[in-house]
Amino acid sequence: CIVRATLAIEKETPENERPETFLRSGDDPHSSVAASTTSVRARFERMIREAQDVVCAAVEAEDGAGKFTEDVWSRDGGGGGISRVLQDGEVWEKAGVNVSVVYGVMPPEAYRAAKGGDSSQNPGSVPFFAAGISSVLHPKNPFAPTLHFNYRYFETDTIKDSPGAPRQWWFGGGTDLTPAYIFEEDMKHFHQIQKQTCDKFDPRFYPRFKKWCDDYFFIKHRGERRGLGGIFFDDLNDYDQEMLLSFATECSKSVVPAYIPIISRRKETPFTDQHKAWQQLRRGRYVEFNLVYDRGTTFGIKTGGRIESILVSLPLTARWEYGHEPEEGSEEWKLLDACINPREWI
Amino acid sequence: CIVRATLAIEKETPENERPETFLRSGDDPHSSVAASTTSVRARFERMIREAQDVVCAAVEAEDGAGKFTEDVWSRDGGGGGISRVLQDGEVWEKAGVNVSVVYGVMPPEAYRAAKGGDSSQNPGSVPFFAAGISSVLHPKNPFAPTLHFNYRYFETDTIKDSPGAPRQWWFGGGTDLTPAYIFEEDMKHFHQIQKQTCDKFDPRFYPRFKKWCDDYFFIKHRGERRGLGGIFFDDLNDYDQEMLLSFATECSKSVVPAYIPIISRRKETPFTDQHKAWQQLRRGRYVEFNLVYDRGTTFGIKTGGRIESILVSLPLTARWEYGHEPEEGSEEWKLLDACINPREWI
Repeated sequence: CIVRATLAIEKETPENERPETFLRSGDDPHSSVAASTTSVRARFERMIREAQDVVCAAVEAEDGAGKFTEDVWSRDGGGGGISRVLQDGEVWEKAGVNVSVVYGVMPPEAYRAAKGGDSSQNPGSVPFFAAGISSVLHPKNPFAPTLHFNYRYFETDTIKDSPGAPRQWWFGGGTDLTPAYIFEEDMKHFHQIQKQTCDKFDPRFYPRFKKWCDDYFFIKHRGERRGLGGIFFDDLNDYDQEMLLSFATECSKSVVPAYIPIISRRKETPFTDQHKAWQQLRRGRYVEFNLVYDRGTTFGIKTGGRIESILVSLPLTARWEYGHEPEEGSEEWKLLDACINPREWI
Repeated sequence: CIVRATLAIEKETPENERPETFLRSGDDPHSSVAASTTSVRARFERMIREAQDVVCAAVEAEDGAGKFTEDVWSRDGGGGGISRVLQDGEVWEKAGVNVSVVYGVMPPEAYRAAKGGDSSQNPGSVPFFAAGISSVLHPKNPFAPTLHFNYRYFETDTIKDSPGAPRQWWFGGGTDLTPAYIFEEDMKHFHQIQKQTCDKFDPRFYPRFKKWCDDYFFIKHRGERRGLGGIFFDDLNDYDQEMLLSFATECSKSVVPAYIPIISRRKETPFTDQHKAWQQLRRGRYVEFNLVYDRGTTFGIKTGGRIESILVSLPLTARWEYGHEPEEGSEEWKLLDACINPREWI
């Protein structure tokens, strides 16, 4: 496209076909481990690609009309991704399910954004590997909640000319729900599934990751959370690596049973213009969180990532009214109250 | 309001009446200059409050139906402000014109955000004074452009226990136009008035501040500007202080003649749903710029400023479509091209 030819950032190249893998074979100069088919990198890639297929199939089936379109892209620097978007379906107005597998050498500011560390750390350029699945599903009906989930795996390699520097790995991710109206049974169902999944691995996971989620999705300048939570964890490496890979896999598999039954119940509920306007205001808060605080978004923006894939998380439409305050005791007020004062749902 | 009682940030107190001045009289412990009626602080406050009255009156007259509502607030820390908002008028869907006059002791991170300096500077807490007028006017008609203007004056005082530290002052501001469609005569008219105002002071001002505007309103992750520019300057203190006060005054006075004639010409132009959808997409870019890059917004968020006043700059509604690209040669494409490759309009 001529218009965009002046862009100076590193560009993604569109591809016509999905590759079998985005990993380089054996001789990856940036990796100290062989990219074998049994490496954590390779197994994580297969996991997120399967999860993408499963979630997209479930969304299409529940929508009944909309279909995902797919963009495959590669980066000269290394790796690539598959972006799938369903726009203007019957049930969802915008649904994005992306996987990406990228590696290369990370500028120091991107490393800091990824690590979330303070700026006093100045590690220089660091070879890295990052793979993840990221999805935001925005339904049309204001009684049907937005879902977000994201599971990612991150490695840094030994720094060149610093052979003693350690190789590090982390897992991160979570699944959280953002309704405009509270249905107790939906919230209970959603959180129950998160807890069941967590409990398979460690009884301390759900309380820890539920609170982490409430803390993470905090819109500081509003004093309220984006939504009603779920689970969230980041920079996790203080457990067995195989256990965490298995945990991320189970979390990804729980997305469909946690979410789709709620959509089935709510997708055809009649609503008024006032319900829709409130949903739009809450979507404004969604935009505020993602652009101001979300680490994935800020990381993507700083690394010059594929901007359409990064910002597919934003809703189709959003609204900002000056000084809007819901009437005390109203359904809107109850939602806002739960965003300000997180509740236990189970 | 009970719901918000859990907020921990410093709160503004609503006031029933506009005070004659937000400045403290004589004995301001944070100021090394008496807050006399002839001080730059006092004259700048009078200027922005007059500008607020003039712009609001002109907008109401042109709108014909909508009226501004006013919120007056004070801060325990010092100072206060007057927020005026017109929502859902005949011509404008959201118009905010705010003045604020605040002072106190600034946390280091806010000082860095205000100064835009790198994080290696670590000045500790700094007594400050900041006054400004800030306005964003979003019309309904997609052929009628959004206007933003902002003029501000900033002082830091000697740091306590560092009597040798210098008192510093800066002016900042600008006026810029964000259309969804280009009308050459509108752009020429708007930039001509900016140039005339600049030329009264220094023939180098317009080219310098026009370029500064194009550079400032750059949405880096998109490779495009928010709109079609105007003038912008920041941290300006390398000219005579009286001259810059006079320049900011003239710039504020030029807002009505630069903008209102354009609105008169465009406010009743018939439009289609497609025109409206394109305007909404451009408003999405407006949101992206303001939340990710705008110094005033990030400064306001970091200092725990009055969030409704800060975010009144956001449009009533905005839109994000995945992978939208206007057809080459279309009117939408021409606008985007001018956002990517800034033009000279006069």
